[in-house]
Amino acid sequence: MIQPATPGMPLAQVDTPALLIDLDAFERNLRRMAHFAAKAGVRLRAHAKTHKSPDIAARQLALGAVGVCCQKVSEAEVMVEGGIGDVLISNEVAGTPKLDRLAGLARRATVGVCVDDPANVAELEAAAARVGAKLDVLVEIDVGARRCGAAPGEPAARLAELVARSGHLRFAGLQAYHGAAQHVREAAERRALIARAVELVQETRRALAAVGLEAGLVTGAGTGTYENEAASGVYNELQCGSYIFMDADYGRNRRADGSAFADYEHALFVYATVMSLPVPERAVVDAGLKALSVDSGMPLPWQLPGAAYHRPSDEHGVLDLAGGTARLARGEKVLLVPGHCDPTVNLHDWYVGVRGLGTDGARVELVWPVAARGAVF
Amino acid sequence: MIQPATPGMPLAQVDTPALLIDLDAFERNLRRMAHFAAKAGVRLRAHAKTHKSPDIAARQLALGAVGVCCQKVSEAEVMVEGGIGDVLISNEVAGTPKLDRLAGLARRATVGVCVDDPANVAELEAAAARVGAKLDVLVEIDVGARRCGAAPGEPAARLAELVARSGHLRFAGLQAYHGAAQHVREAAERRALIARAVELVQETRRALAAVGLEAGLVTGAGTGTYENEAASGVYNELQCGSYIFMDADYGRNRRADGSAFADYEHALFVYATVMSLPVPERAVVDAGLKALSVDSGMPLPWQLPGAAYHRPSDEHGVLDLAGGTARLARGEKVLLVPGHCDPTVNLHDWYVGVRGLGTDGARVELVWPVAARGAVF
Repeated sequence: MIQPATPGMPLAQVDTPALLIDLDAFERNLRRMAHFAAKAGVRLRAHAKTHKSPDIAARQLALGAVGVCCQKVSEAEVMVEGGIGDVLISNEVAGTPKLDRLAGLARRATVGVCVDDPANVAELEAAAARVGAKLDVLVEIDVGARRCGAAPGEPAARLAELVARSGHLRFAGLQAYHGAAQHVREAAERRALIARAVELVQETRRALAAVGLEAGLVTGAGTGTYENEAASGVYNELQCGSYIFMDADYGRNRRADGSAFADYEHALFVYATVMSLPVPERAVVDAGLKALSVDSGMPLPWQLPGAAYHRPSDEHGVLDLAGGTARLARGEKVLLVPGHCDPTVNLHDWYVGVRGLGTDGARVELVWPVAARGAVF
Repeated sequence: MIQPATPGMPLAQVDTPALLIDLDAFERNLRRMAHFAAKAGVRLRAHAKTHKSPDIAARQLALGAVGVCCQKVSEAEVMVEGGIGDVLISNEVAGTPKLDRLAGLARRATVGVCVDDPANVAELEAAAARVGAKLDVLVEIDVGARRCGAAPGEPAARLAELVARSGHLRFAGLQAYHGAAQHVREAAERRALIARAVELVQETRRALAAVGLEAGLVTGAGTGTYENEAASGVYNELQCGSYIFMDADYGRNRRADGSAFADYEHALFVYATVMSLPVPERAVVDAGLKALSVDSGMPLPWQLPGAAYHRPSDEHGVLDLAGGTARLARGEKVLLVPGHCDPTVNLHDWYVGVRGLGTDGARVELVWPVAARGAVF
C-alpha cells in the first residue's frame, strides 16, 4: 500500500489523494470534548467507527475516555490488538463465526455488546460458555431512530432479565443511542428528540426496577446531541465519534441561537491535486468517489472562496470556480472537507498528520495506518 | 484481513457483508461483450477501475480484450504486477512521484496515458527520458462530458504535434470518452450525445490530418453507450467496465424500445445478514455505507418482492418490508444489488465467486482479492 507521505515532509510534497489530519485542530477537538465530559460528570466512550485507529483511541484514552465503541467485531479486534482494553460493540452481533470471535475477544479485554432479541441472548450465552468468557451485555432500546433496539419499557426489561440469568453474561445497562437525531439541523428539535429518548430510558428504568434490576450504564449520544444527553441526569456515558474531525454535514447543524454548530473545528481533509484544468473556471481534481464518500453531501473546498465541488466520478471531482475569485493552476493541491467523515476515512489506508496546516511551515508530523479500514465483519 | 469464505463452502456459510460474484451470470456477461466487440470489429480494452482485479482482467484478455484501462498509476501497477501486459491510463497524471512511477511502469509493460495540456506533455517526456522509457500518449478531447480533455479540433491537434515531436512519447490516438452520456436514461438521447461526440472526433481527425498526423486509436465508450460508438465507424476501441457486473443504476437505463437495459445480468451482490428484526416489517442488515456505495442510489434487495433498502448508516441498512410479502428471520442472509458497482467494489478486500447462485447447491468456487482496492494514487 503506497504511503502518501513520510514524517518531516513539507505539506506540498504529500502525494494525493491523501487523508490529512490538521493535528492542531484535532487536538483542540479532543481536549474540548474531554473537558466537557469531565465537567458534566459523564463518561466518554468515544466511537472508534469514526477513526478506525488505535493510535487515535489511545489519545482519547489519555485524555480520560473510558474506552471506545466499535460497530463490528472485526473493528473491535483491531482495537484490542492495538492495545485498547475496553471496547463496547454498540451494535447487535449475529452469526456463529462472529459470536465466537466476540467471545474470544472477551477473554483478552473488557468487551461489551448489545442485544435486542431473546434468541440473541441465548446465542451470546452459548458462545461465551464455549470459551469460558464473561461478556458485558447492554440491552439496546429504540429511542426513536427506528433502526435496531427492543421496545422500551417491559420488553427491554424482559430481555435484561434473560441476560441477568445467563451464567456467562453480565447485564451492564442500556444502549440508548438516537442516531436519527444527530443531523437534525435545529437545536430545539434535537433537544425535543433527546427529551423523548430520556423519557423512554426512564420508562425502561422503571420496568427494570420492577424486576429487581438496575441499569448501571445508560449510554448513547453523538456529536449532534451530546449536550442534551449529558444534561439529562439519566445518561452517564457518551458515544461521540465525529467531534474529533467535524465533517461538512455536522457543520450544517445549528446551535440554539441559530448560529452554525462550530464547537469543533474541521480537522479532517482530503488533499487533492488539480490534474486537469481545461478552462480556468473548471479544475478537475484527483479525488472522487473512491477518496470521498458523498452520502451526506459533497465535500467543501477549503479556503477557496466561491468554489464548489460537484459531479464526482470514481477518480475525479470537478471544482466549479465560476462563482468565486479563486483560480488554480494544474498541479496545485487543494484541501477538501469531507461531507461525512466516517465512510471517507474507511476509503483510505493512511492518515497523514500535519502540524501547522494553513501556515507556510505546514509539515507532516506523523503517518498513522487506518488500521481497521475495511473491518466490516 | 478477514476472508469471508473459502472455496467449496456452501453459500449460506459465507460471512457477511461479502462481495459476491454470480459466476454464471458474470461469465455470460464477459462472453456477450467479447462477442459483440468481435462481431463489430472493434477492440475491447475493458476498464479495470470497475473490478480492480488482475484475475478478472485475465479472464477478459482470454476472451479477446486487448488490455485494460486504469484510472490511476497505482491501479496500473497492480495490473502489471498481476501479469497484465497492456494498460492504458485513461486519465491525466500530474505530479512528479506519479509521473516517475508511470515511466518506470512503461519499462515493464505497454503503457499508455492521456494528456490534455501542453505542460503535461513536457512533464511526461521528461519522466520517460529520465528512465529511458517509451510511453504511448493519447490526446484526450472533451466530447461533451465537461470533465477533463482538450478542446476538439485544432487545440487537440496542437497537443498531438507536441507529443509526436517528443522523443520518448508516441502519439497513439484520441481518448474520447463521454462519461456523462452513460447514465442518460433514454436510448435516443444517448445516441444523440454520442453522435455529437463522433462529430467532434471527426473534426479532430481533420485537424490532425492538416498537420500530417493520424489518430491510430479512437478509444472511449462505456456500458451505457458502447453500441453507438461501435457503430460509428470512427471509434475502434471500447472501454466498457460495468458490463461485467451490471449495477442497479445501469439497470435504470432504457433501450430504444423503452424496455429496461437488461443486455447484461446483475452479477455482483453484497451478501448481508439480518442482524436485528425489531418488528416484522423492518429488517436491519449488517451492510451500510462501508459495504455499499450509495452515490448512485440505494442497493436493490434481490428476489425480495416489495422490499426496499433505505436509511443506510455506517454499518446498517434498513430493509423496509411493509410494501411487500417478503418476511425475513433474524440471522437470515440476503442479496443486495449495489447501486454503483465500481465504488462498492473498492470497499471490499475480497470477491467471493459463487457457482449456482439462486439454486440450493450454491457454493463458493473461488475467492479473489480486490487487489487494487484503495489504489487511488
